[in-house]
Amino acid sequence: MTIQAAIGKLSSLLGQRLACSKTELAQHGASETHFPLAPPDAVAYPETTEEVAALMRICAAHRCPVVGWGTGTSLEGQAQAFQGGVCVDFTRMNRVLEVSQADMHARVQPGVTREALNDELRATGLFFPVDPGANASLGGMASTRASGTTAVRYGTMRDNVMGLEVVTATGQVIRTGTAARKTAAGYDLTALFVGSEGTLGLITELTLRLRGIPEAISAAVCAFDTAADAVNCVIDTIQMGVPMARIELVDAATVRAVNAYAGMNLPEKPHLLLEFHGSETGVAEQAEVFGAIAADHSGARFDWATKTEDRNTLWAVRHNAFHAIMAMRPGARSLVTDICVPISRLAEAVEACRTDLESAGIDGPILGHVGDGNFHAVLIFDPEDAREEQKVIDASNRLVDLALSLGGTVSGEHGIGVGKLPYMKREHGPAWALMGQVKAALDPDGIMNPGKMTPPRN
Amino acid sequence: MTIQAAIGKLSSLLGQRLACSKTELAQHGASETHFPLAPPDAVAYPETTEEVAALMRICAAHRCPVVGWGTGTSLEGQAQAFQGGVCVDFTRMNRVLEVSQADMHARVQPGVTREALNDELRATGLFFPVDPGANASLGGMASTRASGTTAVRYGTMRDNVMGLEVVTATGQVIRTGTAARKTAAGYDLTALFVGSEGTLGLITELTLRLRGIPEAISAAVCAFDTAADAVNCVIDTIQMGVPMARIELVDAATVRAVNAYAGMNLPEKPHLLLEFHGSETGVAEQAEVFGAIAADHSGARFDWATKTEDRNTLWAVRHNAFHAIMAMRPGARSLVTDICVPISRLAEAVEACRTDLESAGIDGPILGHVGDGNFHAVLIFDPEDAREEQKVIDASNRLVDLALSLGGTVSGEHGIGVGKLPYMKREHGPAWALMGQVKAALDPDGIMNPGKMTPPRN
Repeated sequence: MTIQAAIGKLSSLLGQRLACSKTELAQHGASETHFPLAPPDAVAYPETTEEVAALMRICAAHRCPVVGWGTGTSLEGQAQAFQGGVCVDFTRMNRVLEVSQADMHARVQPGVTREALNDELRATGLFFPVDPGANASLGGMASTRASGTTAVRYGTMRDNVMGLEVVTATGQVIRTGTAARKTAAGYDLTALFVGSEGTLGLITELTLRLRGIPEAISAAVCAFDTAADAVNCVIDTIQMGVPMARIELVDAATVRAVNAYAGMNLPEKPHLLLEFHGSETGVAEQAEVFGAIAADHSGARFDWATKTEDRNTLWAVRHNAFHAIMAMRPGARSLVTDICVPISRLAEAVEACRTDLESAGIDGPILGHVGDGNFHAVLIFDPEDAREEQKVIDASNRLVDLALSLGGTVSGEHGIGVGKLPYMKREHGPAWALMGQVKAALDPDGIMNPGKMTPPRN
Repeated sequence: MTIQAAIGKLSSLLGQRLACSKTELAQHGASETHFPLAPPDAVAYPETTEEVAALMRICAAHRCPVVGWGTGTSLEGQAQAFQGGVCVDFTRMNRVLEVSQADMHARVQPGVTREALNDELRATGLFFPVDPGANASLGGMASTRASGTTAVRYGTMRDNVMGLEVVTATGQVIRTGTAARKTAAGYDLTALFVGSEGTLGLITELTLRLRGIPEAISAAVCAFDTAADAVNCVIDTIQMGVPMARIELVDAATVRAVNAYAGMNLPEKPHLLLEFHGSETGVAEQAEVFGAIAADHSGARFDWATKTEDRNTLWAVRHNAFHAIMAMRPGARSLVTDICVPISRLAEAVEACRTDLESAGIDGPILGHVGDGNFHAVLIFDPEDAREEQKVIDASNRLVDLALSLGGTVSGEHGIGVGKLPYMKREHGPAWALMGQVKAALDPDGIMNPGKMTPPRN
């Protein structure tokens, strides 16, 4: 078999750093959500770009599938090896190569996690702002175009990756982008690789844009009578140009779950969680403007937390939400939806989602990054109950139709993997075939994370 | 001839809106800078996307070159037809299709100019921030990944184009992106087409991100003893996280030219021109911080202009700079360099450029978007003097080497066209060939703006 022949050569290349134990294969074939196990045939642990290039040349020669791996926290099965082959685990490529305080950027290997980078940056007064919740690897975050709670202020990985080193499908090492703040020189290959989920090449180095830690940070939680009130408050806040650093919605069901999970005592109502970054006076000014807007939308009185420990308690609500939701029904799994709509349609989308799930009898607490128009419904089901699983998939399909009918997207931040692949044609129309042409040009043998992202080959 | 056959069919399609007069061909084959005339064989004036698609199908069938045209203000010969064929002039596709105040975006046809869009937005409290100086078409600005004076705050076209409608090389109409604020669904085709200079398809519609007009705007001009002082002041201002909306350098030679041209009386020293956007208190705070930093770097005392007319007088210095420079030597032409370097190397780059030009005996006033690390030297030469022209090209080559040695880019914002094509290999190495693979996949017959951007075909 061609895969086995590749593995033989990779074993000579990497020695002990090519693993084929059942445990390791299973660990690298699992998903965070509801997809079946899809293990690779081997797991490689390269330590250098040169090793990744040598590995790719071997796999190209043998037409052996190659799937990149960061921390395994992706939510759509992006790193699962549905066609077997070699999983390239970047755990050992985890060095911060350079931090430039003057240029406010860092060069890192793909296995560095966002928390590890921020730890390394602690003394510099700088931080890397993209925060998807999980302590994901930066290579994985770039590959899935991750974002999270701070995207409303600091953007997504699209906006924060300045350049890449990539090993192509043929094992060539290329560099994209520059260390300059902007460039108009040539096709934007950086943007092409960001979000391509390992289907065009393997990222072996990233140059990331950093930000200054703000002089003042202030956070608050604010209850509303309805989710629509909360969302309309968000819309008005954006309209007023208030530069929120985070603005997150948790619905009443989520608050109920968090109260039970963390022994908290919040009113069981929709809440907005907010954070503002700026100067002392700037933050105070933002708080005042937001308070006035919230009061117009049934927002309760609230206090601002400016101390780090108080802010951490407050944000624990958001960070614990997923685990709190899952703890409500032990043994259950979830399908997490990820639609993102124009902000003007957000209230309508959240309400339609809520009504749909209720009428279908599905437990689906809603939470999300409402400043971007992106929200998640955590659709809970019993993995032993095929009927219930199908019911949840049907609801997810309806939600996708809703997003597209409102001018939105199937995925705000979780990416495509296998979970959203069935919707690509519907979202992109003929542009999906064009993505297939790009894929065929850069990966002519179809070995880079095969079966993902683009239309099946003829 | 295949081009003539295509023109015959296009004439049936477009009637009077296909022009072949010498005047029109010459007008569409000229450049803003020093490139020789390169006229197309015909100029098409489509009015709808369907017409553009029909046009492309005809040109594809006859392998007839197609070059897009906005306002002709590009600086690297992007719209010149070096292989003849059809120039597609988007002047008649100049409608603003939709303005969403709630979503803060606009859908426009490619022939809308940035000033026309901002006029249309006047009543909404919103504006489109990208300002390259010229009143360019938005389709052209997207195609060249334009930026300008406000990129330091609002980003470039990369950051402000949310989605596109594109007619591909085979005449298919595709849509990229969505009206949502972010998406992780598939390859970032929007970013691939932005900056591709018409070599992959023709943009027939753009969805653009808008911003709220700030509550307060304040501007100032500040003289420094040396360009290095001015640049170091910029670096410190960025480090402090002051959110300047514009921060521009004009060197002493530029000030001299502007004084002569506009009858002004500024000290003949390097100046920074600044603008801050925000709330009343925010802008005042920013001014105070900047004043303190400037004082540390030989910055002169300065006054803030908050009234529109005072600000306009002040910015006239910057907007008149190019014409003022050219007026110093009637009949001369110029080669405008466009390097962009990491901000930490900016002072070094400006000084090295200054020294090089002086020792080569070239008139080359320097001005630029120093908050991005991007600056232009306007290298003046007599177009009748081949030796002088070569001297200027040699200096530009040395400046390119300097930019690349400092981790920068050949083009911060003017793009590639024909002027920077010789440097693509040097900047991108093997990634340039990969751009060629993308080009070959999307434009297999090589009819889209041929001879530009990518390596020559085998």
